[in-house]
Amino acid sequence: MKTSIATVCIGGTLEAKLAATAAAGFDGIEVFENDLIGSDLSPEDIRSMCGDLGLSIDLYQPFRDFEGVTEEQLVKNLRRAERKFELMHRLGTDTILVCSNVATATDSSDSLAVDQLGRLGELAAKHEVKVAYEALAWGKHVSRFLHSWRIVEAVNHANVGVCLDSFHILSRGDDPAGIAAIPGDKIFFCQLADAPALSMDVLSWSRHYRLFPGEGAWDLPAFVSRVLDTGYAGPLSLEVFNDVFRQTDPFVTAKEAYRSLVSLDESVQASRGQALGSTVDAAGSAIPSAPASSGLSFIELSEGLSHETPQLLNALGFQDVGLHRRKNVSLWTRDGVNVVVNHDLVGPAAIASLGVDVPDVAAASQRAAALHAEVTPRDEAGDEDSMAGFVTPDGTKLFFSADKRRWRSEFPPAPEGDASQTAPTRFDGFDHIALMQPWQRADEAVLFYRSVLGLSGAGSLDVPGVRGLVQSRTLESPGSAIRLALNVPPGEPNVETILPVHFALACTNLVATVRELKAAGVQLLPIPRNYYDDLQARFDLTDEEIETYQSLDILFDRDASGSFLQAYTTTGGNLFIELVERQDGYTGYGAANAPVRMASQQRRTTA
Amino acid sequence: MKTSIATVCIGGTLEAKLAATAAAGFDGIEVFENDLIGSDLSPEDIRSMCGDLGLSIDLYQPFRDFEGVTEEQLVKNLRRAERKFELMHRLGTDTILVCSNVATATDSSDSLAVDQLGRLGELAAKHEVKVAYEALAWGKHVSRFLHSWRIVEAVNHANVGVCLDSFHILSRGDDPAGIAAIPGDKIFFCQLADAPALSMDVLSWSRHYRLFPGEGAWDLPAFVSRVLDTGYAGPLSLEVFNDVFRQTDPFVTAKEAYRSLVSLDESVQASRGQALGSTVDAAGSAIPSAPASSGLSFIELSEGLSHETPQLLNALGFQDVGLHRRKNVSLWTRDGVNVVVNHDLVGPAAIASLGVDVPDVAAASQRAAALHAEVTPRDEAGDEDSMAGFVTPDGTKLFFSADKRRWRSEFPPAPEGDASQTAPTRFDGFDHIALMQPWQRADEAVLFYRSVLGLSGAGSLDVPGVRGLVQSRTLESPGSAIRLALNVPPGEPNVETILPVHFALACTNLVATVRELKAAGVQLLPIPRNYYDDLQARFDLTDEEIETYQSLDILFDRDASGSFLQAYTTTGGNLFIELVERQDGYTGYGAANAPVRMASQQRRTTA
Repeated sequence: MKTSIATVCIGGTLEAKLAATAAAGFDGIEVFENDLIGSDLSPEDIRSMCGDLGLSIDLYQPFRDFEGVTEEQLVKNLRRAERKFELMHRLGTDTILVCSNVATATDSSDSLAVDQLGRLGELAAKHEVKVAYEALAWGKHVSRFLHSWRIVEAVNHANVGVCLDSFHILSRGDDPAGIAAIPGDKIFFCQLADAPALSMDVLSWSRHYRLFPGEGAWDLPAFVSRVLDTGYAGPLSLEVFNDVFRQTDPFVTAKEAYRSLVSLDESVQASRGQALGSTVDAAGSAIPSAPASSGLSFIELSEGLSHETPQLLNALGFQDVGLHRRKNVSLWTRDGVNVVVNHDLVGPAAIASLGVDVPDVAAASQRAAALHAEVTPRDEAGDEDSMAGFVTPDGTKLFFSADKRRWRSEFPPAPEGDASQTAPTRFDGFDHIALMQPWQRADEAVLFYRSVLGLSGAGSLDVPGVRGLVQSRTLESPGSAIRLALNVPPGEPNVETILPVHFALACTNLVATVRELKAAGVQLLPIPRNYYDDLQARFDLTDEEIETYQSLDILFDRDASGSFLQAYTTTGGNLFIELVERQDGYTGYGAANAPVRMASQQRRTTA
Repeated sequence: MKTSIATVCIGGTLEAKLAATAAAGFDGIEVFENDLIGSDLSPEDIRSMCGDLGLSIDLYQPFRDFEGVTEEQLVKNLRRAERKFELMHRLGTDTILVCSNVATATDSSDSLAVDQLGRLGELAAKHEVKVAYEALAWGKHVSRFLHSWRIVEAVNHANVGVCLDSFHILSRGDDPAGIAAIPGDKIFFCQLADAPALSMDVLSWSRHYRLFPGEGAWDLPAFVSRVLDTGYAGPLSLEVFNDVFRQTDPFVTAKEAYRSLVSLDESVQASRGQALGSTVDAAGSAIPSAPASSGLSFIELSEGLSHETPQLLNALGFQDVGLHRRKNVSLWTRDGVNVVVNHDLVGPAAIASLGVDVPDVAAASQRAAALHAEVTPRDEAGDEDSMAGFVTPDGTKLFFSADKRRWRSEFPPAPEGDASQTAPTRFDGFDHIALMQPWQRADEAVLFYRSVLGLSGAGSLDVPGVRGLVQSRTLESPGSAIRLALNVPPGEPNVETILPVHFALACTNLVATVRELKAAGVQLLPIPRNYYDDLQARFDLTDEEIETYQSLDILFDRDASGSFLQAYTTTGGNLFIELVERQDGYTGYGAANAPVRMASQQRRTTA
């Protein structure tokens, strides 16, 4: 796969864009007209800079509003095109993108477009340029890719072909199976973008909300497969207009972009029945497939400004088994659930790292590195467990470990008389971990967890909080051994909008667990009476059930499969812990209850 | 006009919402179900709190997914409704909003909906409740207001009427003239929201992007006129879901909301042929109409961290006429254009205030106060000009002055031999002032300038900057004596995204002015050669024109009416000054050139 990316995808000056693109491992770039016009590098300078960086210039774009115009306008357009062809010659690129006319077309007939594009083809041939004609989703008369192909087929000129862009095709709901109608040698270019499942006008959607493949809702592997089926062998090029990317460090964005293409290639290979591991990294080595994790062997939290982490763990019956033999971190454990408390991390409570059980650390690590994940070595000595560490876009660290019992021996053994062994109820592992996302990195984080860990899902939900909407996207590993909730707080994180950190423990019997905790004097988040009045109006619950839930501050939800019970500790400092029970395969996260929970938390904060 | 607002419009706890609503002067509120469910105030507590604050509870909402369902589901829905009617009795409100079914309807026939809403009417009558049925724009079977009216008409029950919501009607493109078909006494409620001119799916549009009247693109006065024509005399209630409002201080949002209703009332009165001044404030006094400003008599800037303001003014031939007789501010003047430099304001260069010439300071000031503008007194002594000062949402201060020559005498007279009197070219006043908008306040600022100053316009444009998109909205007074460009930088303002401050001076002959400046050694922002190559490809300009513009770093644009020339000083510290010439009634701001300008500025910053 020849990889390419449009300069418009990333921020910074043209010089920075070129350097970042090369550093991320791309083979080529598309030069966007505005980037050239605003630059004081001459076209020759840009050409030689790309040459030095090992980048080919695969496309010059965009050239707009050419066809379907009056003869008088066409003469002007041909003059404009000739100037651009001369420029391309200086730039050293031979393909120009011509978008379907959105503004100046006065005639909707295909025959006029065919005639005028034919004349452009003649001029292009003289300048040894190839014209890639693309149907913009909001084109005035030509807005579907099969329409652009009918026109190009009728033009029947060696220098005129089509450009296929996943955005313009999938945003219109067109079936990529139709691509089969186009011979591969008439596809002059292929541009890729993913997008969230919005349904807004295609122009705004396109200009602001495109995403890299794997960050949105579209089936890009199926799309690319259709393109490759035609015999197309040109670049797969990212063209992603996104408000966030343009504000971000171009080197970070370029790596993210490259990760998306590698991951896409992998999915394409799999969907085409290739053996796993047939995707290769920039150096040509095979990339191992995503690790089949059996779950989280531990999570690591900071102690919190007011020691809230140990206090809450203690309240929930976790035992402090003591300090690591070398490091200032303690292990707390109950029912085989392990939480490491780091005493050296200062600041509000935060989830610092996740210990991910994988069958093969070397393979998981090689994969992460090939996907440009940033390495963070674990502090290890002697015969300690050998883990591989990576930093996620949201700052959480992942530590891959192959044998969860090995690191356990770095801590003291559990004391005799472990309370958890006599408790009538048990925790059944982590149900999910909520990870706070800076809004600038949230889409990147989805791609990261999908590609590096092989999680899937990521349906998006807006939860109305007291200070604004919280966007929540959930991801799961196959079999749900790992569940993550990626939460984006409203606006910039600050003292007003910051959300407390939390994770959820799975309970086998939440009613019994909460009774046990209440009997032990643990205070749970009080839920207002009005909530239970409404619950009674909404569900067929018995008075006794309502009364039980109300007396225990348990929230209730139901989906098509089953029921869900939730309770929360009160928030200590910046941390609370959620307790959940899933009944009969309930798959959600109780989102309907989140506004009530957040209002109750807010009341306690301001009280 | 009885004013009301839904609790969902503003952020904070229910207690804060009620207090903020009352403080802003509203007559009543709509209680949104989620606000009640999440509250630990009992319905009786809420009722008595509203009573103490002088607020009526005008509506309980929303009740969803009632009609068009199976008989089994209907029994459940009636049970749920009865619980809510009992709750409303405790709350002391008699009207419930029932939205058209979006989820559970299994039957699209009107007859079933009519039958089931009739049974709801019977139950409502027993509980003395009025049901206001509203067609949601995304209702499953009922999504247009005339459809909801046909159903209500057929129900023919005293306790069942319609709720009209401008969002659901205008977002579907329906003509509010159709409201005339509905008798006023069957309109049980009227909700208002404005919105930006997006075309996205109505659900997302509704949930995130509603605006208060006067902030968006819709003709709310025409809508309200149609409703009043029916004889409707109930509350006009704001129901605005907006991500920003929910993150803002509820007291600020409630005042903004109230301002929008007062301003709307004024427009409605005007459109119905009422005399001006027939709109009254909360205390019942008539509100004077918007001032007919003759322009800006001065603008006040801070000196800037590196004295950039005086340096740039000096470079452009402004003369420093000296200090104010009492204050540490200097007046700089050329060709009757006045810039005050404040030496006491520290920090980066910023536009601190605008001196607005108005015919009647007392009237302009009374209007601003009635619209909840925050007063900021000018430091005045003795016989100095008596101005009235107000702070805008973006922080700029407005000073209304009735006689622009009076304050002039507080500064020394201009020295003899004023360079501007001998210069061959002249400045013709301020063309426009660019005011930086924190994104959280930008919509509020549009409403403020529209209502307090009577500006109009505010088309929105996204300009691609090097660090992301800059949203720009322009407003003008009648006759264009005042032009403002409200610019929202990408993301939170910080060292990466902050935009330099600028204002634009109108030139009668830009080519001559720039020649004069260059001859005097003034450096203008260099524009890359690539820009002029493109200009030649885009416009029918002669080689000589292109060469002149290129040699003078002048940018060119053209619209349907005329041409536009622009040049920029280099940025000193945080300030640059734009020079423009409008030819033949060009109405824009040269937005097409902004990316080139920003790229050139960025290059100089990072060089």
